[in-house]
Amino acid sequence: MKNSQNIVNYEKVIEIDNGDVLHGMKNDSIGYVEFGEMYFSEIKFNSIKAWKRHTSITSNILVPIGEVKFVLVIEEDNNLEFKEFIISKKNYLRLTIPPLVWYGFKGVSHDKSLIVSLIDKKHDPNESESTELEGFNYEW
Amino acid sequence: MKNSQNIVNYEKVIEIDNGDVLHGMKNDSIGYVEFGEMYFSEIKFNSIKAWKRHTSITSNILVPIGEVKFVLVIEEDNNLEFKEFIISKKNYLRLTIPPLVWYGFKGVSHDKSLIVSLIDKKHDPNESESTELEGFNYEW
Repeated sequence: MKNSQNIVNYEKVIEIDNGDVLHGMKNDSIGYVEFGEMYFSEIKFNSIKAWKRHTSITSNILVPIGEVKFVLVIEEDNNLEFKEFIISKKNYLRLTIPPLVWYGFKGVSHDKSLIVSLIDKKHDPNESESTELEGFNYEW
Repeated sequence: MKNSQNIVNYEKVIEIDNGDVLHGMKNDSIGYVEFGEMYFSEIKFNSIKAWKRHTSITSNILVPIGEVKFVLVIEEDNNLEFKEFIISKKNYLRLTIPPLVWYGFKGVSHDKSLIVSLIDKKHDPNESESTELEGFNYEW
């Protein structure tokens, strides 16, 4: 992957008096592959979940509540680069994480955040790998 | 529809120290038809969004944040019955709303709630119908 252009997809927030509507993903959205499963991950303030990568699954990720910093480890010109994305309703984007890309995330809003993941195959514990937080030299 | 058995599907909450994981829906879940679109609706405390029905779309609905009262208008033995479901992380269920069933919802937690909808076709404004709140004689 040469850049992060295909990773970031801005989605629409429609303001409505009694409660806004936020787009998520459609079956013809950029980054959509197939529907395997949708699940939620909460992350508390200053907590970190890292590092993980899928071997064959593409994830599409949204943060409708709170604010989360996502870090993706991208190989560019034989160097590892840490790409950071602060995601919230204010900076409302869908992150498409391809297979084999290591990633982690941290809760950065005081209230707990909600991460919504759409994956193109059902969850399978043997399909993903994880390392210790110290597995990459990154200053959270 | 003779009863509400197929409407309610309890999903799993997995407690984790730095943030829980909540199941949503899988491609072989009861109530899953196809993936058309996923979107979010916020609802403020005491606000009501009602009434609406889809003509051909099946919706699967979850409430990972806050607490929402859903009311479905179900025809049983030629009578209209109002089926009420209070949904939150504490009573964590996925509601499968078939086409042609009128429904509405109200925010019942003080903080705003988040409703996650998975629909089996992409949103199409001509596919759904709505009535005034007074369209059904229901005491919210």
